[in-house]
Amino acid sequence: MEQDKQNDVQSNLMLNKKLSRRDMLRLAGVGGVGLLLGGGAIGSILSSEIKTKSSPSTSLNQDPDSIPFYGAHQAGIITPSQNFICFAAFDVIADNVSDIRKMFQKWTTASASIASGSLIGNVNDNPNLPPSDTGEAAELSPSRCTITFGVGPSLFDARFGLQNKRPPSFQELPLFKADSLEPEWCGGDLCVQVCADDLQVAFHAIRNLARIARGTAVLRWTQEGFQRSAQADPKSATPRNLLGFKDGTANPDATDSTLMNEVVWSQSIDGTSWMTGGSYMAVRRVRMRIEVWDRSTLSDQENTFGRHRHTGAPLGSKDEFDTLKLDEVDSKGQPVIPTNSHVALAHGDGSIQMLRRSYSYSSGMDLKTGQLDAGLLFISFQRDLQKQFIPIQQRLANNDLLNEYAVHKGSAVFACFPGTTEGGFIGETLFGRI
Amino acid sequence: MEQDKQNDVQSNLMLNKKLSRRDMLRLAGVGGVGLLLGGGAIGSILSSEIKTKSSPSTSLNQDPDSIPFYGAHQAGIITPSQNFICFAAFDVIADNVSDIRKMFQKWTTASASIASGSLIGNVNDNPNLPPSDTGEAAELSPSRCTITFGVGPSLFDARFGLQNKRPPSFQELPLFKADSLEPEWCGGDLCVQVCADDLQVAFHAIRNLARIARGTAVLRWTQEGFQRSAQADPKSATPRNLLGFKDGTANPDATDSTLMNEVVWSQSIDGTSWMTGGSYMAVRRVRMRIEVWDRSTLSDQENTFGRHRHTGAPLGSKDEFDTLKLDEVDSKGQPVIPTNSHVALAHGDGSIQMLRRSYSYSSGMDLKTGQLDAGLLFISFQRDLQKQFIPIQQRLANNDLLNEYAVHKGSAVFACFPGTTEGGFIGETLFGRI
Repeated sequence: MEQDKQNDVQSNLMLNKKLSRRDMLRLAGVGGVGLLLGGGAIGSILSSEIKTKSSPSTSLNQDPDSIPFYGAHQAGIITPSQNFICFAAFDVIADNVSDIRKMFQKWTTASASIASGSLIGNVNDNPNLPPSDTGEAAELSPSRCTITFGVGPSLFDARFGLQNKRPPSFQELPLFKADSLEPEWCGGDLCVQVCADDLQVAFHAIRNLARIARGTAVLRWTQEGFQRSAQADPKSATPRNLLGFKDGTANPDATDSTLMNEVVWSQSIDGTSWMTGGSYMAVRRVRMRIEVWDRSTLSDQENTFGRHRHTGAPLGSKDEFDTLKLDEVDSKGQPVIPTNSHVALAHGDGSIQMLRRSYSYSSGMDLKTGQLDAGLLFISFQRDLQKQFIPIQQRLANNDLLNEYAVHKGSAVFACFPGTTEGGFIGETLFGRI
Repeated sequence: MEQDKQNDVQSNLMLNKKLSRRDMLRLAGVGGVGLLLGGGAIGSILSSEIKTKSSPSTSLNQDPDSIPFYGAHQAGIITPSQNFICFAAFDVIADNVSDIRKMFQKWTTASASIASGSLIGNVNDNPNLPPSDTGEAAELSPSRCTITFGVGPSLFDARFGLQNKRPPSFQELPLFKADSLEPEWCGGDLCVQVCADDLQVAFHAIRNLARIARGTAVLRWTQEGFQRSAQADPKSATPRNLLGFKDGTANPDATDSTLMNEVVWSQSIDGTSWMTGGSYMAVRRVRMRIEVWDRSTLSDQENTFGRHRHTGAPLGSKDEFDTLKLDEVDSKGQPVIPTNSHVALAHGDGSIQMLRRSYSYSSGMDLKTGQLDAGLLFISFQRDLQKQFIPIQQRLANNDLLNEYAVHKGSAVFACFPGTTEGGFIGETLFGRI
């Protein structure tokens, strides 16, 4: 009850005028505690504040570090990768769609604020209420933060009357050979993928969205990750994974909108209207056997990937982006790129593509073994899991040399909604605009 | 046996000419596999490579992103904080000092390479051996990486004959009121604190040092952390912790060398010669009750810290760096800054100081409670734990309002060696130069 009241206060506050995170905390602190000020007073204090600050921007919507939240598609899918991810799977504890809808409405408003670098809620924090924003990202740049929402197959069970809305080909993944899944890293009714160039900004988003979900959904599992590419333009370079190899070279070109319509975005002809413009996500928590890998020879490592470690080029080639020549043989008639190497199996005959958007993770030490719990939070987006992720993963699971060094510990799939426009909310195509 | 051989190969390789991480992987990949090249050949290939690269630097020692590893003191103590930490406590599994000494010699050489942005080991990776560097930081900047080593009180037990070397006032911390310590986050024979502006660079360092330790020491616990300050010059601004408040404002000035000699560096008159120029570290893993905090009012939050959330100023003051006026009372005669607020208790009468160098941490979800496992990896450096950390922490543990929102789950202390010069090794003052 108390919590509902609090949520309502927050919702009301969110309707008010927005200011940037930098400005709002600045204002909230004027006079020591948050004061209830009229617009005029805000304006005059703002002006006087600005004179003393080095970053006078009051509208962060034009911030080059800000990626628009609203649009035909959700951001965070074909968006060039940021440096960090905070991923969370939630389970719904509410028993009706109406509560889920309300939560998505609040999530949408909050996410738009976060993406634009604004504080969540209103400038006028009442000292007798909890602050509407937890504050740890105050004054930080929007950091290209994107927030992407999806729903898992379990949401379409009997609880919410959504059984008939489940896209026919959208279901839990089959168990793959060599899977070693642990339930605490699997599944979820909902997912939130936050990516940003600043880990503190990403953490802030997940923490505040979890807070807003209170009473409706609870965290099921979370995973943070990072990835770093070295070149002057990190958005175009291929980062190295924790095995030291470049990963993601053969990704389809996300700037090619025709290709994205073929590979990533669900189309109206696919038969599930609420998903048109959305995309299906596969997420796998792949623990790497770091210590074993580190004792294998460079030659073994390169044969495992089918690429040269230094350049990222396919074995026998010079450049990372050289075409894969899978039928090339050496003087002894052996394939230059082993047929069971990761690159050969992932590529197959080249007819199936998906958009990968993975991050490395490091989660400290495995208490059971004393070894580092580190690896890859594999994420891919595709138009159809049955036709894309599943056949590729089956090939890999059955024969990939990399399986000796990587164990799939977590797994989930989510149907990520199409985008929405200002005034709408993410999920409206499924939950209805009521 | 096999591993010893491998370690020897690595040690030998480390003696060879150093090139930067950027250059070395570039070279290692020329011709597809690592080639054994003479110095002349390296030179000529380097020249031709440079022409095709945008970053032609071959000597990263002058990189502004590089903090010198060698010096009178270890880096990472009074060094301005970087954005990320990877902290690891190790237990020694060897049974003699000689093995520990050898490991520190290898650790020193590897750390100097990492700090200068070089790959660990040699350019000439033999394809039939494991690579001497795991490669995931290849081409990345040194990222102001610092690596700081220390030893715990347990190293001075009967195992290694070092009993008489323990500094008299260096022992495990007493149990503080409200401690809720879990053994898996406590203690350690050794510690390695890696800090860097790039998490991948920091991870790479810990991972390779753990690898080098193999057979001599094993990981006991690890914790990663982050901290972000917002201003143009992040090195001088105070970052916000995960409770949304600025943390570390009242830190002593690390650029004041007289003050650092008083507060941080162990002096010869302190009576433990091997620690002269070193410093004692306290590290506490403080879990924050995020969800409880987020439901408390702004007013409660500000009274808990004794500071305004927005400005970081002491309650009743305007500016973060205003002097604490702990005896100021309001019109009702009540202290403006509550006597049991965090800032009042931490400050006390101002006679005791220590240098804090803490990071926020976020370690996903607590599986038992479904809540975020996040908080503060508190780290402080001081000349004497008994005279500095312990009395301050006792004051806080007994009365701090913040105790309602923070639980100490992990704890350790380490004696961090003085620095060393090129040719020497960290730990030589304790383990001897043999």
